[in-house]
Parts: sequence; C-alpha cells; structure tokens
Amino acid sequence: MESAEYKRLKALVEEHLLAFLPEIDDKSSTLKEAMQYSLTAGGKRIRPVMLLGAAEFCGADIKLALPYACAIEYIHTYSMIHDDLPAMDNDDLRRGKPTNHKVFGEGMAILAGDGLLNTAFEAMTKDILLYFDDPKEMRKRIRAVYEIAKGAGCRGMIAGQVADIESEGKACTREMLDYIHINKTAALFTASIRAGAYLGGTDASRLEDLADYAECIGLAFQIADDLLDVLGDASQTGKATGKDCELKKCTYPSIYGIDNAKERLHSLTDRALEIMAPYYDEAELFNDLAKKLAVRTK
Amino acid sequence: MESAEYKRLKALVEEHLLAFLPEIDDKSSTLKEAMQYSLTAGGKRIRPVMLLGAAEFCGADIKLALPYACAIEYIHTYSMIHDDLPAMDNDDLRRGKPTNHKVFGEGMAILAGDGLLNTAFEAMTKDILLYFDDPKEMRKRIRAVYEIAKGAGCRGMIAGQVADIESEGKACTREMLDYIHINKTAALFTASIRAGAYLGGTDASRLEDLADYAECIGLAFQIADDLLDVLGDASQTGKATGKDCELKKCTYPSIYGIDNAKERLHSLTDRALEIMAPYYDEAELFNDLAKKLAVRTK
Repeated sequence: MESAEYKRLKALVEEHLLAFLPEIDDKSSTLKEAMQYSLTAGGKRIRPVMLLGAAEFCGADIKLALPYACAIEYIHTYSMIHDDLPAMDNDDLRRGKPTNHKVFGEGMAILAGDGLLNTAFEAMTKDILLYFDDPKEMRKRIRAVYEIAKGAGCRGMIAGQVADIESEGKACTREMLDYIHINKTAALFTASIRAGAYLGGTDASRLEDLADYAECIGLAFQIADDLLDVLGDASQTGKATGKDCELKKCTYPSIYGIDNAKERLHSLTDRALEIMAPYYDEAELFNDLAKKLAVRTK
Repeated sequence: MESAEYKRLKALVEEHLLAFLPEIDDKSSTLKEAMQYSLTAGGKRIRPVMLLGAAEFCGADIKLALPYACAIEYIHTYSMIHDDLPAMDNDDLRRGKPTNHKVFGEGMAILAGDGLLNTAFEAMTKDILLYFDDPKEMRKRIRAVYEIAKGAGCRGMIAGQVADIESEGKACTREMLDYIHINKTAALFTASIRAGAYLGGTDASRLEDLADYAECIGLAFQIADDLLDVLGDASQTGKATGKDCELKKCTYPSIYGIDNAKERLHSLTDRALEIMAPYYDEAELFNDLAKKLAVRTK
C-alpha cells in the first residue's frame, strides 16, 4: 500500500537507522541491545519519511538530511518505549513483538528511552560540527534541531502524553481531545516536516503549506489510530486492541462516535490534498500519504 | 562551607533556573509542577556552577552561559528523577523531600524526566537562534551542546547508570567500578567544564587542564558520595543511607574498604589542585571546590 516514493525513502531510513547511534561500550551492551531492539522492531517510519520528503521537496540532498530523519525516529521510538511502561499504558505487545520492558525489564527500558532521546540530539549536533565553515548550512541545521526539540517537548509531544494519561478515566471534553491529538501526534509530524523544510532551505510559502498539511495529516493519523483500536484486530495491528476503551482514554470515536470519526478523518485528508494541490506531481509523496491514511480504516 | 565565588555563581543559577523552561500550557500544569518540584528541591548546583566557572575562567560573559548552565542542571535533575523510580533505585527521599514519583506518581515522574531532558536541548538550541549573524558565537555554542549531549548520553552518564543497575547484586570488579564512576558522575562533570570552556572560547591548554581537573573532581565526588552513604546519616544527607549496601551496589568503599576510599578521595583532590596550581588565584573556584570535596566526609 506504500507508494514507490514512500518505499524509497523508508528504505533509506531503515538502511541508516543505526548509523547515528554512538559507539556504545561493551560494558553497556544491554543498553545498545535494548535501543536497537525497539528501533528495528519495524514500523511505518512515517515521521522520518516525511522529514526526508519535505527536505527533498524544498531542494535538499536527502542524504544530508538523514541524521535528522533518524533522530526523529529515535525520539518517536523512545516515546513508544516509555509509553508502553506499566506506569503509563502498560502494553505487552507492540508491532507484534513483546514491548521493550517485557524483554529488558523496566529499569533498562527507561534508560533505553532516555538513551534514544539523548542520542537524537547528540547525532544532530555532531552533524552540525561538520559545517563549521559554512554558516548558512549551520543555520539550516540549527533551525531543524530547534523545530524537533520544540515538537518533541513540553509544548508538543510530551504535553500530549501528559494530557493523555491525566484524562484517563475522566469525562473528556472535545477541547481536551483536540489538545491531546494536536500535541501527542500532530506536533511531531509538524516538527518532522518543518525540520525537513528548513534543511532544504525552504521559502516561507512552501513552509506554511507544508506545516498546514502536516497538522491535518497528524490529526488524521491519530484519528485513524483511535479507530484501529476499536475496529482492528491484534493480528493485523500488531498490538492489543480495545486498550483505549479499557483505560477509558479520551479518543475521537469515544467522543464523536465511529461514523463521525471516519468523516472527520476523510475531511482532514481532503483538506491535506487541497493544500498540496497547487504543487501537482511534485507533491506526490504527500498526496499518496494522505490518500493512504484515508483508506487505512475502511 | 561554600566559597564566596561558589555562592555567587550558585545564586545566579538558582535565580535563572526556571527562566529557560518553555511556556507550558495550563492543560499540562501537572507536568510543569512536577518539573519545577524537582528543580527547586535544592541541591549543590555543582555542575552548572562548574560550567559557569569554566566559562568565566576562559573569558566568557557568564550571563550568556546561563542557558547552558541551567540545561546541565535540567539533565542532572531528570537523571535523578528517573534514578529514584521503583524500577531503578526505588528511593522515597531526595534532599530531605519525597521523590518526584512519590508526589506525582510514576507515569508523571517518567514524563517530567523526559520533559527536562528535552527542555535542556530545546533551551540551548533556542539560545543559538539568537546568534545567527555571528558564526563564531554559533560555533562556540554548538560545541557546548555537543559536549553536553555526549557527556549525558550513551557513552557517558547513561552508560554509567546502565552499568550501575546491571552490577547490582553481582560480584563487582575494580574495572567495572571505575567504569561506573567515570561514566555515571565524572562524564557530566567533564561535560559541564568543557562546555563552559568552549563557551568562553578557550585555548587548547586551558581546555586540557580543565578537563583533567574535571575528571579528578568527578571521581572524587562519586567516592565522597559512596562514603556518605556508609558514614552519613539521613538527617544530614537528606536521603536514605545504607541503600548501596542494601542493593549490593558496586561502590568504592565496598571494593576497597573505607580507609582506602578516603585515601583515594584525597589523592584525587590533591591531583586536582596540582593541575590548577599554575593558574594561582585565577582558579580559586576550582581550588576551593577540590578542597571542599576532600573534607566532605571527614
């Protein structure tokens, strides 16, 4: 179901995914193993693909954007490891495999998550050291790191996770649901695309279109994920379903009902396509992605 | 017991400690509260003081080094929050107060730690955005971020914590003990001092002396900490004592005995003083710090 363009970028990500991890000492081999376990457990790689796609769309040599693409996948992976912990969502299964703490224990899973988050910034900063003679290239990269830090942080992904666990078991308002969705998922999507655009040395109008597109797709992705938790089965999704309901999570289907959720998903993907329409075939990757999301739960 | 110089820098750190946190939304007010709780729970602020001291020693305006000093304290604080979790050291008390997870719950403590680590990099990168017209100042700051990322990461502090939890309950070799001490504590000390030196635009010989000094002090600090766990009492140290022995941790006193540990502590502080001797009074902060550590467990 992935387009050829998506596959090309995803293959690049997977090929380089371990290349930006630091040289970890043998005495910390379990840490390395735990980090690599979750990094190589599969996944759509949608955030790094979007970063690379945005970079290319804005004129970058995507090979040079790889440290940032991998960094965003390190951040996404750390957030999954921590999110699966017993003190958070308490999940035993992710992508059809035992979760990190089920294999390595809770303490090591916490450290593997910390390690991946730290590594993301270490890898990106190390990359910038290579451009000390080129202020323009330094600036592009610093902007990219800042977008990623902001999207992943306390005004972005972490804020969403906090609201998510705080809303459990409580009556959830529509306002709170939007807040959770925008921060938990859309913030890192937007950061990926904005970072890619900066790496490509974007002009302001492309950046604005890409950022609007990213917000639509981020929200659509989260609604599709919520729907899959209700409609999917574990053999298909690779993780336990019905968890949201069990934990009394604040989800789109639980507040608006399944049909309305599907309708909202479709209107978001239509809007995403509309934003990118002026770019025609140049935006093929982004168009395919939007269409793919729309049919994910059909 | 702190020198006037130490107090001056510590006061600066405490005054600005919350200044570089992002504007956190009301919907994530518990996250903000949890992060601030641990940040303002006291502490020696030794790492940020060393960063500022090194920056000044190398010619920087220390006010401009504050985002980096605070970032290193955010990183130290996150590592304490995660370290205290039940899955790690399971501590109820830190600096005489209930630990983060005892007050806010485990899930929130994990997220508060993640939030502080992310914030450290967000704050430093945001600072660099201010220097886009000055490549020389950009370079100094990028180097500082890289030193901090490396020292805090999988080849530094996190590696030490991994080895620390993995060595629990096992026969510990001297080699493993050194590995734990160098990574768990000395790496972040060294990173603080190196980052400060880079911010000050250091010359290579000062950097080398400072880095050697930092390694001695970092090891001395950890030995003093191990000794306090055996010799101190909770009312004095603000945390439970005897924990290391209970968890069968790999510590200096448990491997070498108390007298040898004290001797090693003193020889490390002597060596630190020797390294900084050529700088006379200019290195007053560093000399005082070394002397203070040496008497901490007398």
